[in-house]
Amino acid sequence: MNERKAVVIGVGPSKGLGAALARRFAREGLTVYVAGRTAEKLERVASEIRAAGGRAIPFAADATVESEVISLFETVSRDPGELDIVACTVDSNRRAPLLETSGDMFRELWLQNAYAGFLVGREAARLMVNQGHGTLFFTGASASLRARPPFTAFAAAKSALRALAQGMAREFGPLGIHVVHVVIDGVIDGDRARNAFPEFVAQKGDDGLLDLDAIADTYWALHNQHRSAWTYELDLRPFKESF
Amino acid sequence: MNERKAVVIGVGPSKGLGAALARRFAREGLTVYVAGRTAEKLERVASEIRAAGGRAIPFAADATVESEVISLFETVSRDPGELDIVACTVDSNRRAPLLETSGDMFRELWLQNAYAGFLVGREAARLMVNQGHGTLFFTGASASLRARPPFTAFAAAKSALRALAQGMAREFGPLGIHVVHVVIDGVIDGDRARNAFPEFVAQKGDDGLLDLDAIADTYWALHNQHRSAWTYELDLRPFKESF
Amino acid sequence: MNERKAVVIGVGPSKGLGAALARRFAREGLTVYVAGRTAEKLERVASEIRAAGGRAIPFAADATVESEVISLFETVSRDPGELDIVACTVDSNRRAPLLETSGDMFRELWLQNAYAGFLVGREAARLMVNQGHGTLFFTGASASLRARPPFTAFAAAKSALRALAQGMAREFGPLGIHVVHVVIDGVIDGDRARNAFPEFVAQKGDDGLLDLDAIADTYWALHNQHRSAWTYELDLRPFKESF
Amino acid sequence: MNERKAVVIGVGPSKGLGAALARRFAREGLTVYVAGRTAEKLERVASEIRAAGGRAIPFAADATVESEVISLFETVSRDPGELDIVACTVDSNRRAPLLETSGDMFRELWLQNAYAGFLVGREAARLMVNQGHGTLFFTGASASLRARPPFTAFAAAKSALRALAQGMAREFGPLGIHVVHVVIDGVIDGDRARNAFPEFVAQKGDDGLLDLDAIADTYWALHNQHRSAWTYELDLRPFKESF
Repeated sequence: MNERKAVVIGVGPSKGLGAALARRFAREGLTVYVAGRTAEKLERVASEIRAAGGRAIPFAADATVESEVISLFETVSRDPGELDIVACTVDSNRRAPLLETSGDMFRELWLQNAYAGFLVGREAARLMVNQGHGTLFFTGASASLRARPPFTAFAAAKSALRALAQGMAREFGPLGIHVVHVVIDGVIDGDRARNAFPEFVAQKGDDGLLDLDAIADTYWALHNQHRSAWTYELDLRPFKESF
Repeated sequence: MNERKAVVIGVGPSKGLGAALARRFAREGLTVYVAGRTAEKLERVASEIRAAGGRAIPFAADATVESEVISLFETVSRDPGELDIVACTVDSNRRAPLLETSGDMFRELWLQNAYAGFLVGREAARLMVNQGHGTLFFTGASASLRARPPFTAFAAAKSALRALAQGMAREFGPLGIHVVHVVIDGVIDGDRARNAFPEFVAQKGDDGLLDLDAIADTYWALHNQHRSAWTYELDLRPFKESF
Repeated sequence: MNERKAVVIGVGPSKGLGAALARRFAREGLTVYVAGRTAEKLERVASEIRAAGGRAIPFAADATVESEVISLFETVSRDPGELDIVACTVDSNRRAPLLETSGDMFRELWLQNAYAGFLVGREAARLMVNQGHGTLFFTGASASLRARPPFTAFAAAKSALRALAQGMAREFGPLGIHVVHVVIDGVIDGDRARNAFPEFVAQKGDDGLLDLDAIADTYWALHNQHRSAWTYELDLRPFKESF
Repeated sequence: MNERKAVVIGVGPSKGLGAALARRFAREGLTVYVAGRTAEKLERVASEIRAAGGRAIPFAADATVESEVISLFETVSRDPGELDIVACTVDSNRRAPLLETSGDMFRELWLQNAYAGFLVGREAARLMVNQGHGTLFFTGASASLRARPPFTAFAAAKSALRALAQGMAREFGPLGIHVVHVVIDGVIDGDRARNAFPEFVAQKGDDGLLDLDAIADTYWALHNQHRSAWTYELDLRPFKESF
């Protein structure tokens, strides 16, 4: 039997990007490591996947801590099967004028948005290079391409992540690793937005926020691209979104 | 009955991008208008599609001539069904140091790569705006993003096409039209390359050139994106290709 | 005596970019060919320069007509001295939704903004390559980098010009020709804006429009850059301008 | 008397970018705070400036330590005069394949290239906003725009710095602060390169490396731009450099 594995890290609420990707990869038959910081959230997502007939393994790990990321991938590598997909969806944003941005806040955003991506990307690549294949997803934002106040610190972190993805695509593509940087330009229709700014969500109207399953469709299509025609970078944006 | 139509313009040899897209859209059940300058090539591609059980209508038109493009879309609009997809694959490249680039050559490359896209895009959008939906594909190249001698004139033309696509995405996206700019970064594995530089092709090795069906897979996936998560631009590149 | 020459093409009103550059280069001691379509405007600018003690030669030429551009540079090459600077400031904009953009309008904008630059750039480079030095300026706009409706046709043309400049910088830089693309992001404080939209100008307030002499200062500083540290591209923007 | 002050931080060897900028600003009559980590290097550069008739104040500070940067600018603010210029030239590069890049190395490059810029930029902006004017320089590299192995970690850090500069330009430009991001694309002709790879330097030939005084000329010209026509970003590159 040819078991296939996926790792999704940065999994939080059930209606969040990490959970949606985990569900999708499980539905396609992969065993999914559901990783993130909060064990109960991981358990809930893993349970939902199992209830739907999929295979999911919760794994509590802080993606900004080198030893925990190494430990996650060591565990993954010991289990049977090949590691087809790793998706890093760790993401953290803060709104702040620059003069009110502390050193700690600037560093924290970098740890979550960039450094976590580096650790996950490196450990994923280590396993995938040995296999000679695998897809590695990084999730960016409009701020990955443009810095606008009051989100300068977030943009600095997301720009670093984009550079990481680009450098990795150049280094590992020829070795058979498909590195993808997805620029999410808009608000995801998930628990985070619905709780944080419900009026904004209501005002956006039908299909004005990125649907979680729609995002997952594109990730899956990208994973299935033939290696003679790979995408490194693309944007995802609601049709109404101005850009 | 809910008939669906597609237009592919810039169709040349059977092993070319236009033909591959036409075949794919036909296989998915669309009636495909196979348009280009050379009637016999269009006939051959249309015949192949029909032989495989699809519906194809050859239509001879020079995409750089305003009246011919208008005439094509008038014909399309009179036939029953909705116009789901228009793909412009007109493309023309020339290698020349700048001091050896004539005014005629500079203009010709612009006509083929940019002006044709404008005419096709405008007439396609005219029909799609009335429907409130439709996908419009423009095909770019690495030169769309970067100008390198001896391909400066080509880059100037492809950059214009990219700006057209971007402006159209911003103008027509909110009206339900999905405008996509696909950056082909590498050599397509088709008749053009195999005839023009066979040694280069051989040297590229397995999957070193973009497979036509692989490209068509991504076009089809893009057409099927949910409108809450549309891609405006992406690159397609062989895994080995340096960038 | 070591005579130095400059060509400025696209010269219109006295309070316009072409005239401002011509005045500046003349003030620095260069003999300036003041070129453009309208003889009386050229005469006026040339007279003003002469009245201020400079040397200016009006030359009526349509920058979109290959023979006229060739003729201009043949004349320049027959006069004594070296051709230090060529600045192409031909520029033409039109506001139009895409469905109301005619083929003629799309082509006309390309002729003015891109094709003229190609002809001028090529003929300038021809002379400068023989000398082994010279500065060649192209003038872009915010639309050179981003296409926004209702200026898509303009953006397509300006993007083509930018690609031309970039390709030329790569081809001719190593031969000693300094090719510069200046992105003017904002409204120039000249006759064109003051006549066309006076209320907008008033509303912009102090230093909200680009001062002509300020622009000329930067062109002059760029011309004087040491060849070990050349700039290919930069933006110029009023401090208040949002971007 | 209207005293004017400048801060240059990241000053190392006499033949380095920080020292060259400090010399230039001092020559133009500014009192220059010569800041960096190594007291003896600062003393040497300050002495040279004083020997040439300028005013220089060495200030030992690690730009990656928040309290030290705050302390530097508190000192500067207590001295008489206005703070005209702050230039951050802290820069650190390492060559490493991604699988050999440790978490510490990735973090260290970010601290030097990005976090230092944030601390310096924030404290500089704090003083400049009160004055309503000032020029703030960040120094980037080709890697600020493109990530290539084996310099992915460096590119991630420099991309973050660029985003910081861009966000600050947007936030503080309208308040009268001129934020500039200079992309150095090539090797600077200084002690660092001459010691580290002498053969490479020799092979580059005349003007193949960026001359320190030539770079300083452009910084000075940028500082003197009229606020109606400010540059946010530009590249500096030897004429021979391929890009």
